[in-house]
Amino acid sequence: MYEERIGTVMRNLERRDLSQMLVCDPRSIQYLTGAYVEPGERFLGLALVADRKPVLLLNELFSAPQGIPCNVRGYKDTDDPIALAVGLFDPAQPLGCDKNLAARFLIPLMERGAASGFVLASDVVDDARAHKSAEERDLMRAASRTNDAAMARFKELVRAGATEAEVAGQLEGIYRELGAQGHSFAPIVSFGANAADPHHEPDGTRLALGDVVLFDVGCRQGEYCADMTRTFFFGEPTPKQREVYDTVRRANEAAQRLVAPGVRFCDIDRAAREVIEEAGYGPYFTHRLGHQIGLDVHEPGDVSAAHDAPVEAGMCFSIEPGIYLPGEFGVRIEDLVIVTEDGCEVLNEYPHELEVLS
Amino acid sequence: MYEERIGTVMRNLERRDLSQMLVCDPRSIQYLTGAYVEPGERFLGLALVADRKPVLLLNELFSAPQGIPCNVRGYKDTDDPIALAVGLFDPAQPLGCDKNLAARFLIPLMERGAASGFVLASDVVDDARAHKSAEERDLMRAASRTNDAAMARFKELVRAGATEAEVAGQLEGIYRELGAQGHSFAPIVSFGANAADPHHEPDGTRLALGDVVLFDVGCRQGEYCADMTRTFFFGEPTPKQREVYDTVRRANEAAQRLVAPGVRFCDIDRAAREVIEEAGYGPYFTHRLGHQIGLDVHEPGDVSAAHDAPVEAGMCFSIEPGIYLPGEFGVRIEDLVIVTEDGCEVLNEYPHELEVLS
Repeated sequence: MYEERIGTVMRNLERRDLSQMLVCDPRSIQYLTGAYVEPGERFLGLALVADRKPVLLLNELFSAPQGIPCNVRGYKDTDDPIALAVGLFDPAQPLGCDKNLAARFLIPLMERGAASGFVLASDVVDDARAHKSAEERDLMRAASRTNDAAMARFKELVRAGATEAEVAGQLEGIYRELGAQGHSFAPIVSFGANAADPHHEPDGTRLALGDVVLFDVGCRQGEYCADMTRTFFFGEPTPKQREVYDTVRRANEAAQRLVAPGVRFCDIDRAAREVIEEAGYGPYFTHRLGHQIGLDVHEPGDVSAAHDAPVEAGMCFSIEPGIYLPGEFGVRIEDLVIVTEDGCEVLNEYPHELEVLS
Repeated sequence: MYEERIGTVMRNLERRDLSQMLVCDPRSIQYLTGAYVEPGERFLGLALVADRKPVLLLNELFSAPQGIPCNVRGYKDTDDPIALAVGLFDPAQPLGCDKNLAARFLIPLMERGAASGFVLASDVVDDARAHKSAEERDLMRAASRTNDAAMARFKELVRAGATEAEVAGQLEGIYRELGAQGHSFAPIVSFGANAADPHHEPDGTRLALGDVVLFDVGCRQGEYCADMTRTFFFGEPTPKQREVYDTVRRANEAAQRLVAPGVRFCDIDRAAREVIEEAGYGPYFTHRLGHQIGLDVHEPGDVSAAHDAPVEAGMCFSIEPGIYLPGEFGVRIEDLVIVTEDGCEVLNEYPHELEVLS
């Protein structure tokens, strides 16, 4: 499996007239080799060079699993990993660079002449990662299934007087009980007006009657990420809250209906945005419709007006329209979808119906 | 306070013959402005240019607090932030670059001629961050005090048959109850032979009599990080376990005794390493002695043989010797210290004495 993935990436690289690349994104390295290491500030790199076995350069503090499809070169904290990396490449050829390669490594590689030029080339890996294999699609389904089950339990944590932080602190234990590895990202739990900030961090705000309760949460399971948002009402919603909720729900479903191979990402964004604009809330839907997802919770190629490529079978992304009314409340409804041969499969089965908690 | 910090950084920059710098590390931006944003894959940058008010370039999805000491320039997901960034700098002058600036931003900045050269210059900010002010030292103390209190509760979670993951999943709730914001890093909970991997991730391993129980844990509180390791014994330790524990403890304390302004980082590392080597376990202490810490859990300038600068008053770092016996067990004892005028203050008060849990 890993050899096949590396083969795809090497062919993509050749198509870009490149013969060598430095991959440093931990999840890309995991995708290509099965070795997952979070190196923190230390250097981690997978050197891909045409007609050679890939080399994984990693600090000896970390270990790579047996049998991975590359040579492993370890270094110590007292070694100079940049010097080792320079030795892996042909200085007379340009080097494809990982989009996440940090300046503290890239600038020294340039200064020491590791290559004849430095070109952003992550797309050769990202394109491969964007097309989920049958096995990956199964893992994505399983993670979202767990997320559905977890959401049903999360809403049970909601009670008057509880703080967002208290609720947020209990989620990881539930994910682990359900078989997940933990969160796929820091959970967003927002009460009332806090939900009008799409990236609110759970704080000491206490739940009161009349608040919306927004959970934007995901688990990691089998290494793959789930990501779903549901917005509940603690107490009977006002007519305006019902109208906003219904608009967001219709926006979500309009986008989902449109997804099929050949449809452009920007048009999927547009479909949701039009529903919200027609209801008069256009200025309050302040972000892109969604993002691709897999081993990382945000993968490149977003669902936005700025991305006019067509979606292709096997791609997996979020559809997450929202309306954010500062000082009042916010509503977001998010699912993950996988593009199929003739439409899409929605990975989240947790319903869209408005739910009143009490 | 922020104006003073920016002033320090601008003077450091001038000393390096630079007149402009792009800071993108979220915690460095927080340190300099008070605005903390985790931009994910989106661009975030603070442009520091001599004789101009700093400009914070951030996606409109995120908000900066009122009254921060810089101009805020927002952009949308459909805008080109690189073009905006290019316009903030003098193309005829070199640009100091943040060590964490990602290639996906740095290479386009180079291609579009944002500056006459690109130089790693994070040390101008890192040097300022390394010298903790009186207020920062108080925050570091408070975070470690909470970590001490949390450790006393964590060991109560330990019981035969519990898995590492189950125990790990309960830690965040305790941190939050004690007033912390959450973890400062993913906690390490290792039982038995798993403790021989210094970076072990909690898994389904169940606790059995005779296991060591290693907690390497920290909270974030008031934005500053705690980080402490203690190793307990579940059941009476063997003579070898006692010897290893005692060796690691002596190594920790030998290093702590040596810390004072003017002593080199490498000599502090050496002091601990010698204790372990003399006991015959040298090859099993496989990592540096420690790392600096503050707003980030790992800050630049480690306590290792490779770092021969002297420590200075106000610096804060970990002292964390360990002995790792593959297939058997591992022991690590870690405290944070702040360098004082004539020695150091140890921030962790949780005792070093060997503790048997049951």
